[in-house]
Amino acid sequence: MERISSRANEKIKYACSLKQAHSRAENGDFLIEGYRLVRAAVLSGIDVRRIFFEERAKQKYSCEFLGLKDTEIFEISEPVCRKLEDTKNSQGVFAVCKVPEREFVIDSQANYVLLENLQNPANMGTILRTAEALGVSGAVLVNCPDIYSPKALRSGMGCTFRLPCLVCEDLSVVERFKSCGVSIYAAVVKQADAALDELSGRRSALVAIGNEGNGLSEEFLSLADKKVTIPMKGRAESLNAASAASIIIYEMMK
Amino acid sequence: MERISSRANEKIKYACSLKQAHSRAENGDFLIEGYRLVRAAVLSGIDVRRIFFEERAKQKYSCEFLGLKDTEIFEISEPVCRKLEDTKNSQGVFAVCKVPEREFVIDSQANYVLLENLQNPANMGTILRTAEALGVSGAVLVNCPDIYSPKALRSGMGCTFRLPCLVCEDLSVVERFKSCGVSIYAAVVKQADAALDELSGRRSALVAIGNEGNGLSEEFLSLADKKVTIPMKGRAESLNAASAASIIIYEMMK
Repeated sequence: MERISSRANEKIKYACSLKQAHSRAENGDFLIEGYRLVRAAVLSGIDVRRIFFEERAKQKYSCEFLGLKDTEIFEISEPVCRKLEDTKNSQGVFAVCKVPEREFVIDSQANYVLLENLQNPANMGTILRTAEALGVSGAVLVNCPDIYSPKALRSGMGCTFRLPCLVCEDLSVVERFKSCGVSIYAAVVKQADAALDELSGRRSALVAIGNEGNGLSEEFLSLADKKVTIPMKGRAESLNAASAASIIIYEMMK
Repeated sequence: MERISSRANEKIKYACSLKQAHSRAENGDFLIEGYRLVRAAVLSGIDVRRIFFEERAKQKYSCEFLGLKDTEIFEISEPVCRKLEDTKNSQGVFAVCKVPEREFVIDSQANYVLLENLQNPANMGTILRTAEALGVSGAVLVNCPDIYSPKALRSGMGCTFRLPCLVCEDLSVVERFKSCGVSIYAAVVKQADAALDELSGRRSALVAIGNEGNGLSEEFLSLADKKVTIPMKGRAESLNAASAASIIIYEMMK
C-alpha cells in the first residue's frame, strides 16, 4: 500500500477539489468521507476509484476493501487526513468515486418524490434517506443542491447511492409522469384540496415538496392534480421541510 | 433609543455570554436572534428584557416592539451586530429573555413526547417544532441539549416557547405518567412488538425517541408498555432521528 504524507500530493489535491461543485462537474468524480459511506458506495455498485486510509483506520477497515478490483488504495498521514476531512467523523477513511450514470424508469405502478428548489443540501439528503428507507421508487430533483456535495452525501447516509434520482432543470418531466398515468400531488401549507390520507397506500403517485421558505412554485401547483397538506393543530406556521416530507412520504408508502 | 457602538459594552458582553450554557444556567437568561424568534417570544409571553436592533433593522422592525413594557430597547452598530450574531440570518434583531418557569401538567387524556439522550440540539429543536405543530401537549427531555442554546432555539422556530417542556435528569418521571394512566410507547428500529398504527389516534400516550445513534436506553425500554417501529421497505438501516420522530408524532396525533 503506497503511503502519502504530503498535503501537496496531486491525488490529494484532486480529491480535495471534489468538495467543489465545479470540479465534480468537470471531472465526473466525487469524494466521500467516513467508513459507512464508503462501505455503502461499494455495496451499491458505485465505481470506487481510490480509497485513502489514515494509519489508525488502516487496521480497522482496510482488509474489507483490499480485494476491490480497479480500486487504488493509499495510506495517508494524519495531516493529509486533516486536509481531506470535512467533519470530525471521517474515521480516517475517504474515497474518490465516479458519478454513476443513473437509469431512471417511470413505472406506472410506483411512487415517486419530486423536490423543487430545495436550498439546504442536508435537508435534501435527509429526504432522500427517508424516501429510500420507506420504499419510494425514485426522486426527481428540480433545481436542487448537488446530490454529490459533501453535506448532501453525509445526510443521505448512503441512500443516495441506491435511490434512482433524476436531476432536472425545469418541470417538463412532470408531463412524462402524467402520460404514464402517475397522479401528481403537491404538498402545501395552505389551500389544500385533499386530506393527506388521500395519499395513503397509493401506487402510482408522485408527491412534490418545495423550497424550505416558499414552498412549491406556482408553475408546479398549476401542473398538480391535487394539493395535500399535513393537518396542524398547534400554532406553528409550518414544519421543517424534511419533517414534512417524512410524514408525507410515510403516508404515501403505507 | 440608546445607541451602543462598542463591542466592549457590558450589555453586549452579557448578551454574548448567554450563548454559553454556563452563563444561561448562572443568570437564568437566554439570547435569541432573528425577527421571527423575537416576535414569537413576545407573542408567547416570554419576559423579553432587552432588544437590540441594528440600524438597518430599526426602521423595519422596531415600532412593533417599542410599546413593550419593561423591555429596554437599544440600537447597535454593525460591528456590535457582528459580535452578537451566530448566523447570517439574524436580520439585525436580538433579544435577551428570561428563562420562563414552566408549568408542566400531566393530563391523562393528552399525548406527550419524551426525548432521551438526544445529542444534536438542531434535531431536538426540529422535533419540538413538529410536536407543537401537530398538537402534542408537552415534551419531556431526559439528558438532552439545553433548549435555550442558540441552535436548539433556531431549529425550534419559536415552538419551544409554546410547548410545555419538562427537563429531567433521569427516568423517574415515567412512573408519574404511568400512575396517571398514560401508556408508554418506545420508538425502536428493531424488535417492535406493535405496529405503528397502534398509536394512531391515541389519547393518553407518551411516545419516546432515543439517541441518534443508539436509540433508547435499556432502562427506558424496560419501562415501556409497547415498542413501536416505522415499517421500512428500503435498505436504509434507519431514519434521521427528527424524520422518524415526525412520522411517529404524526401517527399519534392523527
